[in-house]
Amino acid sequence: MNNQQNILIIGAGLCGSLLALRLGQRGYNVSVYEKRPDLRKVDISSGRSINLAFSNRGQKAMKLVGLEKKVKALCIPMNGRMIHDTHGNTFLSNYSGREHEYINSISRGGLNTLLLDEAEKHENVKVFFNSKCLSVDFENTTALFKDYTSKKEFVEDADVIIAADGAGSALRKSYYLGKKFLFSFSQDWLSHGYKELAILPKENGDYKTYKNALHIWPRGDFMLIALPNLDGSFTVTLFLSYDEGEYNFNNLNTENRVLEFFQKEFPDALSIMPNLLDDFFTNPTSPLGTIKCSPWHYKGNTLLMGDAAHAIVPFYGQGMNASFEDVTEFDKVLDQGYNDWETIFKTFEKNRKRDTDAIADLAIDNFHEMKDHVANPIFQEKRKLEMALEKEFPDEYASKYSMVTFNENIGYREAMITGRAQDKAILNLLTDKKIDISGDLKSNLEKIKKETEAILEDDRIAGLK
Amino acid sequence: MNNQQNILIIGAGLCGSLLALRLGQRGYNVSVYEKRPDLRKVDISSGRSINLAFSNRGQKAMKLVGLEKKVKALCIPMNGRMIHDTHGNTFLSNYSGREHEYINSISRGGLNTLLLDEAEKHENVKVFFNSKCLSVDFENTTALFKDYTSKKEFVEDADVIIAADGAGSALRKSYYLGKKFLFSFSQDWLSHGYKELAILPKENGDYKTYKNALHIWPRGDFMLIALPNLDGSFTVTLFLSYDEGEYNFNNLNTENRVLEFFQKEFPDALSIMPNLLDDFFTNPTSPLGTIKCSPWHYKGNTLLMGDAAHAIVPFYGQGMNASFEDVTEFDKVLDQGYNDWETIFKTFEKNRKRDTDAIADLAIDNFHEMKDHVANPIFQEKRKLEMALEKEFPDEYASKYSMVTFNENIGYREAMITGRAQDKAILNLLTDKKIDISGDLKSNLEKIKKETEAILEDDRIAGLK
Repeated sequence: MNNQQNILIIGAGLCGSLLALRLGQRGYNVSVYEKRPDLRKVDISSGRSINLAFSNRGQKAMKLVGLEKKVKALCIPMNGRMIHDTHGNTFLSNYSGREHEYINSISRGGLNTLLLDEAEKHENVKVFFNSKCLSVDFENTTALFKDYTSKKEFVEDADVIIAADGAGSALRKSYYLGKKFLFSFSQDWLSHGYKELAILPKENGDYKTYKNALHIWPRGDFMLIALPNLDGSFTVTLFLSYDEGEYNFNNLNTENRVLEFFQKEFPDALSIMPNLLDDFFTNPTSPLGTIKCSPWHYKGNTLLMGDAAHAIVPFYGQGMNASFEDVTEFDKVLDQGYNDWETIFKTFEKNRKRDTDAIADLAIDNFHEMKDHVANPIFQEKRKLEMALEKEFPDEYASKYSMVTFNENIGYREAMITGRAQDKAILNLLTDKKIDISGDLKSNLEKIKKETEAILEDDRIAGLK
Repeated sequence: MNNQQNILIIGAGLCGSLLALRLGQRGYNVSVYEKRPDLRKVDISSGRSINLAFSNRGQKAMKLVGLEKKVKALCIPMNGRMIHDTHGNTFLSNYSGREHEYINSISRGGLNTLLLDEAEKHENVKVFFNSKCLSVDFENTTALFKDYTSKKEFVEDADVIIAADGAGSALRKSYYLGKKFLFSFSQDWLSHGYKELAILPKENGDYKTYKNALHIWPRGDFMLIALPNLDGSFTVTLFLSYDEGEYNFNNLNTENRVLEFFQKEFPDALSIMPNLLDDFFTNPTSPLGTIKCSPWHYKGNTLLMGDAAHAIVPFYGQGMNASFEDVTEFDKVLDQGYNDWETIFKTFEKNRKRDTDAIADLAIDNFHEMKDHVANPIFQEKRKLEMALEKEFPDEYASKYSMVTFNENIGYREAMITGRAQDKAILNLLTDKKIDISGDLKSNLEKIKKETEAILEDDRIAGLK
């Protein structure tokens, strides 16, 4: 597709601004409309730093746009999960047996600022803030906006419109309400919500607990996690049921109950969170949802991308990485030289949707793994064995977590299918005492490989794939 | 819950009229509002008989309301699938190895008429037609209707509102658009649509092909099926992609192309369908969708039931049976003596949703089985073996199909989990030549049981359940 085309992008969040940058680099005329004010001028997050997990798939997209080094400066490596029990005992469980493999904590605002700055260096890229998209006329490729400053509505026309406007996408809503074609759609809410809290830095600016880990307090039905920020603080998130269990968001309604809950379940966290009650009663409780839909595109006119097409729960740390990978994959399709947008959009969705469906399901699995399984002896044994295998046979073995997180050249779907079979193989071999964690590693590896292949083959024969 | 309660039911289709009858029998004051005219007075289907598959779960509900015998008079037994190849060769594949197990073809209109007549025999049951529900105020337990005769809108109040208003449910739409609580929802469309056609009776009123079977012309990517009607005709349904493959609904747009398609793929059907072209270009092409949602109820005020809560594709012949089973299960919860509707609704959904989710997934599986697998040698071998096992060991073996269709005391979810494991066991044992269809049946049964148990146990250990 030649670049004499006007592309309108809805949303200047992480996905929209990366897409604008990349399409700007390719020479397209790009206009981006964002409902929020410019985050570089207004402190949107009111002083609180929201961080995200950043890993290889995100990094691959940064390489594509030449920002690999600049992003590195924003990253705090997290080598593993630091598990905290109810007595405050901790142990570190690495994410990989290969030392160079780790995930990063990164500030959403910092990264978004970088992407916007870089996009605006291209004179063919324009970003407009305070412009909320109300609806999209996907037959005529126009979008209706409201300018929050002037309070006026206006319509913008383009050759194509790409909506990177997040889980509440206006384009997706227009698809759904338009009823012009068969639109498959799902929104699935977990029974749990989340609330952000904070561990503030020491007076001298140091971190109050170990910096280079993702901290988890797994408690079976709920959990607390913490990720480090560059300023010495940690962003802490409580994941808890709205209305089930002894303690839940609905009944944690007095200061005493909140303190009692933290004292009982997270005493070591409580001891470094003197600000807990303020945070707890100031910050909102938010839901956790998965969104899937299809088709993402309407003819060659409009396309959904990022969370607008596939919002996922945060438990695999892949939300942003998956959205960035959308841009990498879209760019690949553009390289294929098709001459019409419909073929480009169709090809993109056909390649991509199976992978975003897979990471959505994997993220739900990981919710249960993080809050529960990480504290379970047989899962811990499996994890230890996998770390040993990755260390001893770095080119021969990759856990499901490694395939998803560190192997950016394997699609999420392949990682899911192979990874689930491998997990099943190891858990069954351990339970049946056919492998022994203290046994010969090479022989364990062979048994796991053989059993994994048998599981995959049985599924293929049964047509389960 | 005492019966001094006013219950408003939206929809007097199969589910709504059965529910009205049952709640009438229990002594509640029941008002039913139906958007269509009274089907006993107006010929809604314009002369064409739409039939459905009726089996044990439906029958169980008929027993509950005492209509077992009256329904039997409306039924045409179908003992198996009559498979037609492209040369017009046929073979019959029974649904069960137990002779007393078969499914039935039943007329939707005939059954609905019976249920309405029986419901209206209770003076505490009133049915109002031509009253379309526009929306439900689920906070205040009122529903807004439009009277199609007077064109006026009116509001009805009740102690509880139960919506049995089908896949396009007004209550479900109010839940979705209301955004008053976290409402999980999915609509999933198949790439295929369907069109109804007919094989008319002979001049003397006889059936033109074998009466007591469900006829299938499986062609891999598409299929034709036919179910008998009491008047000597068959209702024929073509399931075909909208836009993929050599022939699809979008490109079957001339009489010549339709004839060419039928001549090539369904020559024996074409020879008894002189009315094909009229039917093809008169009747609509309709989509095939699955709807799931949660919660079904709002507090103790409103509840979704039947297709309104869980619309499924028709390939397992379980749509009506599942909706009737909803009424059976709801009645069971009423028997438990709870004193508030919220507990009744919550208990009903908790018990029931796992089963309706399962039949939705099984129905999609069966789409692939019917159009494709039934013509596949290894699936045929499996089926033959299962028929022999059911015949020889009627109390020890039940195929997945039998568990779903004929075992009304096993929930759909249990049938799905056990049935899928059993299918996987047989397909793998056959492929690995560990069982032989001509071998000793008792030994085959033991091997299948052992392998099925091993598969279930491996899944349990892997946490897949």
